[in-house]
Amino acid sequence: MEEKRGLKNRGYSHSDVDDRRRAVEEFTGTSLENISKYCFDSEKASKNIENMIGATQIPLGFAGPVVINGDCAKGRFIIPLATTEGALVASISRGMSVINDGGGVRVKVFRDGMTRAPVFRTDGVDHCMRVMEWIENNEERLSLAVESTTRHGKLVSIESFPAGRNLFTRFTYGTGDAMGMNMATIATEAICREIENNTGAVMVSVSGNMCSDKKAAAINMIRGRGKSVIAEALIPKEIVESRLHASTDSIVETNVRKNLVGSSLSVTLGANAHAANMIAAIYIATGQDPAQVVSGSMTTTMCENVNGDLYISVRIPAVEVGTVGGGTRLPSQSEALAMLGCLGDEKAKKLAEIVAATVLAGELSTISAQAAGHLGKAHQELGR
Amino acid sequence: MEEKRGLKNRGYSHSDVDDRRRAVEEFTGTSLENISKYCFDSEKASKNIENMIGATQIPLGFAGPVVINGDCAKGRFIIPLATTEGALVASISRGMSVINDGGGVRVKVFRDGMTRAPVFRTDGVDHCMRVMEWIENNEERLSLAVESTTRHGKLVSIESFPAGRNLFTRFTYGTGDAMGMNMATIATEAICREIENNTGAVMVSVSGNMCSDKKAAAINMIRGRGKSVIAEALIPKEIVESRLHASTDSIVETNVRKNLVGSSLSVTLGANAHAANMIAAIYIATGQDPAQVVSGSMTTTMCENVNGDLYISVRIPAVEVGTVGGGTRLPSQSEALAMLGCLGDEKAKKLAEIVAATVLAGELSTISAQAAGHLGKAHQELGR
Amino acid sequence: MEEKRGLKNRGYSHSDVDDRRRAVEEFTGTSLENISKYCFDSEKASKNIENMIGATQIPLGFAGPVVINGDCAKGRFIIPLATTEGALVASISRGMSVINDGGGVRVKVFRDGMTRAPVFRTDGVDHCMRVMEWIENNEERLSLAVESTTRHGKLVSIESFPAGRNLFTRFTYGTGDAMGMNMATIATEAICREIENNTGAVMVSVSGNMCSDKKAAAINMIRGRGKSVIAEALIPKEIVESRLHASTDSIVETNVRKNLVGSSLSVTLGANAHAANMIAAIYIATGQDPAQVVSGSMTTTMCENVNGDLYISVRIPAVEVGTVGGGTRLPSQSEALAMLGCLGDEKAKKLAEIVAATVLAGELSTISAQAAGHLGKAHQELGR
Amino acid sequence: MEEKRGLKNRGYSHSDVDDRRRAVEEFTGTSLENISKYCFDSEKASKNIENMIGATQIPLGFAGPVVINGDCAKGRFIIPLATTEGALVASISRGMSVINDGGGVRVKVFRDGMTRAPVFRTDGVDHCMRVMEWIENNEERLSLAVESTTRHGKLVSIESFPAGRNLFTRFTYGTGDAMGMNMATIATEAICREIENNTGAVMVSVSGNMCSDKKAAAINMIRGRGKSVIAEALIPKEIVESRLHASTDSIVETNVRKNLVGSSLSVTLGANAHAANMIAAIYIATGQDPAQVVSGSMTTTMCENVNGDLYISVRIPAVEVGTVGGGTRLPSQSEALAMLGCLGDEKAKKLAEIVAATVLAGELSTISAQAAGHLGKAHQELGR
Repeated sequence: MEEKRGLKNRGYSHSDVDDRRRAVEEFTGTSLENISKYCFDSEKASKNIENMIGATQIPLGFAGPVVINGDCAKGRFIIPLATTEGALVASISRGMSVINDGGGVRVKVFRDGMTRAPVFRTDGVDHCMRVMEWIENNEERLSLAVESTTRHGKLVSIESFPAGRNLFTRFTYGTGDAMGMNMATIATEAICREIENNTGAVMVSVSGNMCSDKKAAAINMIRGRGKSVIAEALIPKEIVESRLHASTDSIVETNVRKNLVGSSLSVTLGANAHAANMIAAIYIATGQDPAQVVSGSMTTTMCENVNGDLYISVRIPAVEVGTVGGGTRLPSQSEALAMLGCLGDEKAKKLAEIVAATVLAGELSTISAQAAGHLGKAHQELGR
Repeated sequence: MEEKRGLKNRGYSHSDVDDRRRAVEEFTGTSLENISKYCFDSEKASKNIENMIGATQIPLGFAGPVVINGDCAKGRFIIPLATTEGALVASISRGMSVINDGGGVRVKVFRDGMTRAPVFRTDGVDHCMRVMEWIENNEERLSLAVESTTRHGKLVSIESFPAGRNLFTRFTYGTGDAMGMNMATIATEAICREIENNTGAVMVSVSGNMCSDKKAAAINMIRGRGKSVIAEALIPKEIVESRLHASTDSIVETNVRKNLVGSSLSVTLGANAHAANMIAAIYIATGQDPAQVVSGSMTTTMCENVNGDLYISVRIPAVEVGTVGGGTRLPSQSEALAMLGCLGDEKAKKLAEIVAATVLAGELSTISAQAAGHLGKAHQELGR
Repeated sequence: MEEKRGLKNRGYSHSDVDDRRRAVEEFTGTSLENISKYCFDSEKASKNIENMIGATQIPLGFAGPVVINGDCAKGRFIIPLATTEGALVASISRGMSVINDGGGVRVKVFRDGMTRAPVFRTDGVDHCMRVMEWIENNEERLSLAVESTTRHGKLVSIESFPAGRNLFTRFTYGTGDAMGMNMATIATEAICREIENNTGAVMVSVSGNMCSDKKAAAINMIRGRGKSVIAEALIPKEIVESRLHASTDSIVETNVRKNLVGSSLSVTLGANAHAANMIAAIYIATGQDPAQVVSGSMTTTMCENVNGDLYISVRIPAVEVGTVGGGTRLPSQSEALAMLGCLGDEKAKKLAEIVAATVLAGELSTISAQAAGHLGKAHQELGR
Repeated sequence: MEEKRGLKNRGYSHSDVDDRRRAVEEFTGTSLENISKYCFDSEKASKNIENMIGATQIPLGFAGPVVINGDCAKGRFIIPLATTEGALVASISRGMSVINDGGGVRVKVFRDGMTRAPVFRTDGVDHCMRVMEWIENNEERLSLAVESTTRHGKLVSIESFPAGRNLFTRFTYGTGDAMGMNMATIATEAICREIENNTGAVMVSVSGNMCSDKKAAAINMIRGRGKSVIAEALIPKEIVESRLHASTDSIVETNVRKNLVGSSLSVTLGANAHAANMIAAIYIATGQDPAQVVSGSMTTTMCENVNGDLYISVRIPAVEVGTVGGGTRLPSQSEALAMLGCLGDEKAKKLAEIVAATVLAGELSTISAQAAGHLGKAHQELGR
């Protein structure tokens, strides 16, 4: 009884949460009054958290509307952004307003697939090759193993990386509207059992870090993970000058010196101003996994002078989002998805397009502000 | 009036927020009832967000208590974690419990300093060298320029990277208990004005991406950013076996094949299982900038067999945290800091130590679970 | 006449070379007597050099014999090594001798293909996608274009990387026994003309650096270039101790701390002790392109304790070698190839296997010497 | 006696070399007539090779003259280039001729120091910190240890990287006119003995791969190794058009899309067209270590339109060259150094400047040729 009411309590009811929070208050000598003010049914979070004591409230603002012309996202969108960084929402909004004046964002998902890459121990290179061959020849069998674990996931492709006694195999899955990491993990475990049983290879880890989840990995830049998306906009010369207080050439120059040369000299994966900011804010608002901001940060931002106008694009190789499962089920998060018309099935690509459009707007705003020399000033006024 | 009540309303009062949210509801045809249920004074978020319409509520759980033996963090801590990923909190808690059985975490901040690196345009290599020389000879003057902008920030060191007509200069600041990014930006702008006035170099951007903020940059792995921290623990052989259901050698093997070899083959910055998960959860709970999870993801996790026992350590080169300013002022976030005894001054290093200890526990738990072959199973049971 | 005899002389005869060298001697006030002593028909170098004035003589030694058990290379081989680094040949020889005692090297080419990746300018993402689609649908047509330029080259696969207005397309070719870079370049130009004529995309460069030739590029680690090879050996415990004066565990430890952890912390592509040394020496001896040592340097060296014995392997993702064309035609180089039984057709994979076996031996020797603590001493005695 | 004349013969005399080569001929069934035709005193190569059987002859051509305006290299230089890649010398020469028309190359060494970074095993983070502290407090003592091993080497700086039980310490040395790798290794071993004796840390390897020698390591991009050099040239608009058959803007565009964007997307260290080619050719000609081409390949090439003229620069962070020791002692190599006025003392920086100027010329030529669309054509005509 004592146990149940204290730190070890494992329940999910509101009163379990209260008991647990009180135990924490006692342990830490801290009042957690604000943390206690969560406004959702704690039972509903039972698949999202353990040891729940309340909630963190992140201010939610919006940017836009922004005109998006994607394959899935079409029209004017208001973007929910959860952040505590002053000036961020205003900056993104400014970017969107300028982009709208130029006709909006064009956006495209050019690749889609969630990956999991176990590492096996083999007896050496010969065994390694035999295992690779077995895998190649048994793709259908492995697909069936996948299907025994999930209705939504499909095995799409397999890539093997032998390395001495190690065999890394990267499985790519279609995961429908789920972000799909757990689906991919469970499916991969089923695959691994088949491989172990038929080849004598031993699965050392279901994730061998060639997946690679929540790490800044070149393999994700090059091969993609989740949705790979490009967004672009053309800002007419006059709008660049009147709205951004900069010239097309000064913005292009800033992008080359900062994002391209600076990122190369600092050996950075990707080349952008602050893509992670936009991705974090929209991921948190919509119930995505904020740790996956990491791969989103490998965005490449490109600016060109096209007949005097500013062409800007972002290439985001790994937008790992879903519109079902995970944090999307929670009340405020699912409302944010609803704001975007992204709640539920057949919406994940649409969400990825919206993410990319938002990154584009934030990049435009910050790079042009830096070109115009007043980044610090914006922070001084709005945030800090 | 209409304007004020609608999307363009710029106010921060509760009713401004309500009006704005209603305009968004109308625009999107979506009810935002749950988003409306924020429990803090919207005026207090005025430096954290613009266009506020409510809040995102993230379930908050806790892991621990964990025994930490740092230079600043000493004792037993309960760690607040905001996440929507099922099984994460339980997994971290399991790691902590095992670590406690081994005597707790030893942790150390071995470097501290926030960076900003503007890029200047010069006339070429000769001019570049003269500017570098001027900077070197005028460090005191630049320190004074810094002090004119901040009471807390101190210029600590300067490193220059000439590159043709570009000069990148990386300024490192002591920033007290603030994370310090804005402080560093504003101070750097003051420095840039001095440099521009005295050398003829032109600041192209106050951030030239050798800083590098919110990007996965090798320069931060190598030179550090914010706090660079190491945490370690020794888990006796018997505890490894009885609590982790794995052997020391199997955990060491998993770490080598997955984190070291796998990360090398996928060309990943850092080598870890899922450091970003722990960092994201504690950053969001305590009001840190979640986009800075990116540099935290460059953690190196190492496991060794030391006389049969398991030695595990994490090296996190860039823990960019503060205990004042930014999101730390918000009510639930500041309570989470209070839980850790990290509210206010002289606490930032302590928080960094706690972050590292938490990452250690999460790494231990996941790697040993993978070694024991049941990662997928854990997700099946607890999350989805 | 004057012109012909001097610096501007474009001839290839021995006397042209003499005249030219004399002009250089006059210009520089330096006697080039040793440079004049080349022992091959200068006309034969007409496709290898311009403005020839003589030759550089690199001492050539040998290592081995080494027992190789590859798919193509089978038997005992003596390896020609051109180097000026004292101790290198002796060290590799030592490694080979130890490996032979353990039964020799097992080696395997697991991938083969030369790449060229042009970059096109398109009108934006929509055009980009249309061009990608056209390429996908016209693979046969592109294969024919390739075949119009080469008898030996075959288009094997195509991978596209859209990036805003840029489209990078990586073409992989089978190139028979040639290293194949020029063949690939010429074939790719033919492809590019087809693409330009049919899609409106403009080829900005036939090489868009996603190839990537002679640069340290993650794409080559991950996707391979030229031959991707793994070599391995098992060294029985007693031999490790008696011949290498180290223990299996000390060698494994050295490899983990130095090659795996050290390379990760320094953000290195690959993880090895000095693979580039072996690759440079054998490339120069056999007429390969020494600038391609760069991609060879991305080798991963792995050591394991297998029941007390030392298992060591190297994974070299990009062995870009040929046995016809390029420098292989020159007399001393073609003799070195003949020594290996690698002169002429159907020999390129064999050469790649031999390269990998040589790298393995050099890695074993150096890592075990470092484990035994006497690297510097070896240099003091033999070289320097 | 038999032994002495055969494969195991360890002598350095001409007849020892002959005996050994004959044994190799017998073993391999191959005539090595051309390899036998070396034209230097084999005894003189005794510190450069073991098991010598002859020499590899690489065709040597020249490029230039090129006008260099460095701090050390001043005037018109003819550059010796040893290569077997047809078209390379001609291409570099073309670049030099164009650069001369624009007034020549401006070049600067902006950093200088050879590094060696041992890895120590410590008891954990506390011990690690104590060792770091001891090192910091005993820099003078370590300098003395260095001086006991070398007259030319000086300890310049120390940087420590703790990582759990590992301590990596990067020592930077002034090494006079030697490339300095062996000097640094021997000096570091002396340092390591001091550290071991006084702190209880155990040197696991004198090279812990944070040095990093002959590997593509970001730490060398960021911190430099050997000489860090920048070369630049301004090519007037008319010369760009008349000599390079391209426009300034087309060259700038090619450089951005290929070298900056392409290198970023392929996750390449550095951003250049083929710097490794120039570096390999001049390194081999002048007796440098060709395996160190690897770090030279991390060059950044930048092009800008400056008032219509083409500004081009290369930044080479790691030019690891010497003018004494190593291969520089060999006859043809030392003549090549003499051609450059780089033989002997006080010449290493001059050589580094010349290397950078040569890289610049090669980059200009290739990028502009690609801009003009005829790279493949050049190879078809001149090479193979």
